[in-house]
Amino acid sequence: MITALAGGTGAAKLLRGLVALIAPADLTVIGNTGDDIELWGLHVSPDLDTVTYTLAGLIDEAKGWGVRDDTFHCLQGMAAFGEQTWFNLGDRDLATHLFRTESLRRGATLSAVTDAIRRSLGVRSRLLPMSDQPVRTKIRSTTGWLTFQEFFVKEKGQVEILEVAYEGADAALPAPGVLDAISHARAVLICPSNPVTSIGPILAVPGVVGALKETRAVVLALSPIVAGAAVSGPAGALMAARGLPVSPAGVARAYSEWLDVMVIDRRDQGLTPELLQFGVSPVVADTLMTDRQREVALARAVLEALG
Amino acid sequence: MITALAGGTGAAKLLRGLVALIAPADLTVIGNTGDDIELWGLHVSPDLDTVTYTLAGLIDEAKGWGVRDDTFHCLQGMAAFGEQTWFNLGDRDLATHLFRTESLRRGATLSAVTDAIRRSLGVRSRLLPMSDQPVRTKIRSTTGWLTFQEFFVKEKGQVEILEVAYEGADAALPAPGVLDAISHARAVLICPSNPVTSIGPILAVPGVVGALKETRAVVLALSPIVAGAAVSGPAGALMAARGLPVSPAGVARAYSEWLDVMVIDRRDQGLTPELLQFGVSPVVADTLMTDRQREVALARAVLEALG
Repeated sequence: MITALAGGTGAAKLLRGLVALIAPADLTVIGNTGDDIELWGLHVSPDLDTVTYTLAGLIDEAKGWGVRDDTFHCLQGMAAFGEQTWFNLGDRDLATHLFRTESLRRGATLSAVTDAIRRSLGVRSRLLPMSDQPVRTKIRSTTGWLTFQEFFVKEKGQVEILEVAYEGADAALPAPGVLDAISHARAVLICPSNPVTSIGPILAVPGVVGALKETRAVVLALSPIVAGAAVSGPAGALMAARGLPVSPAGVARAYSEWLDVMVIDRRDQGLTPELLQFGVSPVVADTLMTDRQREVALARAVLEALG
Repeated sequence: MITALAGGTGAAKLLRGLVALIAPADLTVIGNTGDDIELWGLHVSPDLDTVTYTLAGLIDEAKGWGVRDDTFHCLQGMAAFGEQTWFNLGDRDLATHLFRTESLRRGATLSAVTDAIRRSLGVRSRLLPMSDQPVRTKIRSTTGWLTFQEFFVKEKGQVEILEVAYEGADAALPAPGVLDAISHARAVLICPSNPVTSIGPILAVPGVVGALKETRAVVLALSPIVAGAAVSGPAGALMAARGLPVSPAGVARAYSEWLDVMVIDRRDQGLTPELLQFGVSPVVADTLMTDRQREVALARAVLEALG
C-alpha cells in the first residue's frame, strides 16, 4: 500500500504513472484542500478535482486543469450578472462542483463527497481530502491577504509575498483515514508539488507531521524544483518568501524532520551532498513528466528507490 | 401603465408583442412562481425566466424555454453523479439559476434578484414574482402529490389529476409592488396562460383577487383555450379536473368575479353569449401567435379593446 500527499497537476501526473504500474486500489491519495474556493456559491476543490480528473482520464491535458473538451457557456452567462469570472469553471466541470456543494449542504462530509465523486468517475484509488474542516492558504501581499486562487489565478502570482498562512489549520482535524494511511503505508510519497501551498497545508493539519515522523514507512519526496526553478506554478517565489533556497535542498530542509529519500532531477545531481546534510538520501532520475511514458518512467524510478 | 399576470411561453409571446407597441417601461409583469423547482441545490423559476429571456431576446424559440444556442454539458455531467436529469437545465441558463440561488442564500428577496436578472439582461419592463415566499403548485395523482414540473416535464402530463393545491399560498404575501401594480394600472392583462397552474397560483396569493375586484383598471384576459383545447401545455386536463369546461367560457367562469373583457379566437366567436352570461365582454381576434407579426397584431387588438 502506497500513500501519497498530493497537490494538483504535477502530483496527478506522477500518480497516473504510478497506477500504470501498481494496482490502483493499492494507492491512497491525501489531497490538498488549502486552495479550495467558494465561487458563485459553489465549493470548488481544484487540487482534489485535478487528481480525480487525471486518474479518471478526463483531464484537459493542454490546460492541466478542468475537463477535456469543456465549454464555458455558464461562465459567459455569469459575466452578465457581474459575477467574478477570473476563475475558469467549465460547464462539464460545474457538475462536480454542483454535486459537491449540494452534498455538503445536505450534511455530507468533504471526505464522503470526494469519495462519491471519484467512484462516480471510475477512479479506483482512494482519495482523501486532508481535512473535512476548512483550511485555507492565505498569502499576504502589500495590498492585504489573498486566497491562494486570488494570488495565483487572479493576480497571476505577480504580487510581493510577505507572509503565508494556513487559516483554520489549528482547529482542523485530519480527515478520517488520513493518519492511518500514513501510519500503515509501505511507503509515503510526497508528490512533486509546491512545498508551501500544496504540501504545506497538508502538513499544517494537526497530527500529520507527527504521523510522518512516527511511520515505519519509507517517506520519499520528489523535488518540484529542477535546475533552480519550479517545474510549474509559483513554488519558487513562495519558497523564497519562506526563506528557503529554491532548490531540492530547500525542499529537503522544509521536510527534513521526517523525510528519508528525495528524488531529484539529473540536472541537480551535484546537490546530493546538500541533501545528505539534511539526512535525506538522494535518488537521481529524469523528473520532467512531459509525456505519459516519462510519467511511468518516473513512477518506476520511485518504486525502484522504495526497493 | 399596463400590468400583466403571466405564466410562461404564451404570456411571454404576448408581452413581446406588447412592448413592440408601448414603452417597455410602461409594462409591469407579475410572474407565476408556483412552478419553481429546487434542482441540484439551485432555485429555478421557469416562468420568470421564460418571460425574462423572451423580452431579452435570448429565448430558445424552437423549445419555448431556455436560452438560444445553449449546450447541456453540465447536465450530462450530473448524470454521472446519479443526479436527476429529467429537467433540462442548459449551461447558459445555469448562470441565471446560480446567480439567483447565491443571491437568495445571501439574503436577497426573490423580488430583488428577479429585478437584478431582468436588468442585467437588458429587459426594461418591470418583472415582479407574485410572492417572495414559496408557493408551490402541487398536483395529486393516483400515486400521490407531484410538483408541477414533475407532473408536466417528468410525467409529461400523462397522469390522472385528482386535485390541485397551491402549497404555501395561505401564508404567502404578495411581493412588494404586486397589489399596487394591479390597483394603479390603466389596464390589467391576464395573459393567455393556464388558468389553473399559471394564473391560479398568482390568484391564490392573499390580496391579489381583492385587488383585481377593487381596481378601477379594465381587467382583460386572453383565452388560452382555442377551439376546445389549450394552445399549448396541459391547461385542458387541469381545467377539466377542476370541473371547468375546456372553453373560453370555462376560463371566464374561473375569472368571473373580477373579469371585464375576454379576447377569444375567431373560431370561438359563437361562444360570445356564454361570456356575456358571466358578465364578460367578448372581443374576437386572431389569437394564435405563430410568428412575431401575429404577436404584435394580437397585442394591437388588446390595446384597441382597452380603448
